[in-house]
Amino acid sequence: MHTDLCERFGIQYPIFAFTPSEHVAAAVSRAGGLGVLGCVRFNDPAELDKTLDWLDANTDGKPYGVDVVMPMKVPTEGTSTDLKSYIPADHISFVERTLQQLGVPPLPEGEGREGVLGWLHSVARSHVDIALSHRPVLIANALGSPPVDVINQAHEAGVLVAALAGAAKHAQSHVTNGVDIIIAQGYEAGGHTGEIASMVLTPEIVDAVGPNVPVLGAGGIGRGRQVAASLALGAQGVWTGSVWLTTAEYQNLNTNKGMTEAFLRATSADTVRTKVYTGKPARLLKTKWTEAWAAEDAPSPLPMPLQNLLVADAHNRMNAHGDPDVISMPVGQIVGTMNEVRPVADVMADLVAEFEATVDRLDKIR
Amino acid sequence: MHTDLCERFGIQYPIFAFTPSEHVAAAVSRAGGLGVLGCVRFNDPAELDKTLDWLDANTDGKPYGVDVVMPMKVPTEGTSTDLKSYIPADHISFVERTLQQLGVPPLPEGEGREGVLGWLHSVARSHVDIALSHRPVLIANALGSPPVDVINQAHEAGVLVAALAGAAKHAQSHVTNGVDIIIAQGYEAGGHTGEIASMVLTPEIVDAVGPNVPVLGAGGIGRGRQVAASLALGAQGVWTGSVWLTTAEYQNLNTNKGMTEAFLRATSADTVRTKVYTGKPARLLKTKWTEAWAAEDAPSPLPMPLQNLLVADAHNRMNAHGDPDVISMPVGQIVGTMNEVRPVADVMADLVAEFEATVDRLDKIR
Repeated sequence: MHTDLCERFGIQYPIFAFTPSEHVAAAVSRAGGLGVLGCVRFNDPAELDKTLDWLDANTDGKPYGVDVVMPMKVPTEGTSTDLKSYIPADHISFVERTLQQLGVPPLPEGEGREGVLGWLHSVARSHVDIALSHRPVLIANALGSPPVDVINQAHEAGVLVAALAGAAKHAQSHVTNGVDIIIAQGYEAGGHTGEIASMVLTPEIVDAVGPNVPVLGAGGIGRGRQVAASLALGAQGVWTGSVWLTTAEYQNLNTNKGMTEAFLRATSADTVRTKVYTGKPARLLKTKWTEAWAAEDAPSPLPMPLQNLLVADAHNRMNAHGDPDVISMPVGQIVGTMNEVRPVADVMADLVAEFEATVDRLDKIR
Repeated sequence: MHTDLCERFGIQYPIFAFTPSEHVAAAVSRAGGLGVLGCVRFNDPAELDKTLDWLDANTDGKPYGVDVVMPMKVPTEGTSTDLKSYIPADHISFVERTLQQLGVPPLPEGEGREGVLGWLHSVARSHVDIALSHRPVLIANALGSPPVDVINQAHEAGVLVAALAGAAKHAQSHVTNGVDIIIAQGYEAGGHTGEIASMVLTPEIVDAVGPNVPVLGAGGIGRGRQVAASLALGAQGVWTGSVWLTTAEYQNLNTNKGMTEAFLRATSADTVRTKVYTGKPARLLKTKWTEAWAAEDAPSPLPMPLQNLLVADAHNRMNAHGDPDVISMPVGQIVGTMNEVRPVADVMADLVAEFEATVDRLDKIR
């Protein structure tokens, strides 16, 4: 499994692994893929700095990337306290009422209630600045093209830029802005995603950006057959995320054991594409929490970044509570095949072996 | 491109083409695939009989199949006139008002107003009886497993039975009923479809039914790269539909030239999964008609078979009118790459050539 992207990044397999866990990212990079650390959870730049120090020291010199969340147009922005004044009282009382109905208690006195600030542009920019003081080979942006000056900043540091796209025209506009690599994020993916499924989206984006822009297939990829399918569709590599949430290494970050149980038992039908996580459509695990927001009397989700500020405290409370029925977490349709907790190296080895067996099989069909 | 299914059906390529047009079906079978004639449009069994006579005479002795629309549980059923008494007046006035607003005139005096009766179980059964008096090699059912006695009837005639499934558990239950071949119908497909995309659904169904039950990948397949991807996912063949709607041969059936224009200009984002066609979720071209049903003041679609009876006359009126903005037609997300009217043989040749090029490319990646 060797494409031009492997040369470009000095990696063995064109398997890119998005993860909020530095332990998963390091293990993927050590196993020959490219671990990409999600930065959105780092409110404190110093903590990201420290985590990247750890990554520098624990990847055996192998390359890694970082992922930020940054809209291309810089929004007018206040502090998180200012922004909270825009949240309607009805929304706040709906969240509180829902948590009560679902049996989720308040956090113990003194435990942190701060939301995730990484959705704020100024914080995402600080993530880029911190990251560039380390040795990432890639900065990926979950919201499409970053602002052009951020792309230039990365390029000056010799770092490539990848951006998610859910439609061919968005991919073309990312390339115009200077983005190097497009992540074709299909409908079946976890997190922010569009309506076009990978089977249609990947070749469409490959054709739209032309042969000089590598495309990573994303959405529905957790097995070697899916890696082979994505490369068959014209991708030069795959962008994976969900499949790492049930690895042994992820348990270092995940203190909510209910979440792992919820992933292990979920079928591919147990996800839902909804705006309740951030205000933009994102695929989440379908639970009593998402069902409550889908009820007829539920308020409409607020626009980004207000929705995440609204639910951030609820997320902390649900995580502390640990009920597998009451989870708020992005995950793709591939969750149906995430049925045991395994080390990252085993998942990587299976991806590669099944890919090779698949190409052998196709070779015989020809 | 040769799998066990080719031996089983005596075909050159495991490319199955669902189409309401006998001209398309014959051309696909002549070009080495398996043309599968959709029967739902035949209200008059004698007309189906005549059409199958034509197919028998125009396939150069090559095999073909038929497709019926039949729920597994036989519903209580009246005549179409009886059933119409269950349609609320508000629904009827909404349809009439919408057609007026969209500028669709009534049909000229004397033109047929009859709905599509193929959705009725008794009519679908007559399709099976007629078909078995010809030489189909396959009966496929768009609504999953047909009733067990219909499966037995087909088997006694030496005809294999295929059934659509949008979830692994449905596929398993089809197999228990005696269905021979599963069509894994992904979210991106046109017509009746579930929420799980092909990338996830196909391998899930392949694993669920085991190695002795062949699976056809369906949804998002219109190019050779997609055929290769589907076979990589474990399918033994592909089930295609939308891609034949812009063939030259289809124009024999399609008297609505606005429809072809609408397909040619549509992007992959211009479809919508909605219940407005039959009462069950089906992917249609997104037009002013589907948008009207999505408006806040629109009524909820009725259950099958009432919804199709409700809109059947509207479909006839829209087809006679020919406005590409006002179309009611199932089509998959692959419509974005259907950009010219071409002969069936050319589409087939491209599918095969691109498949082979894709396997060559994967071989080099390994």
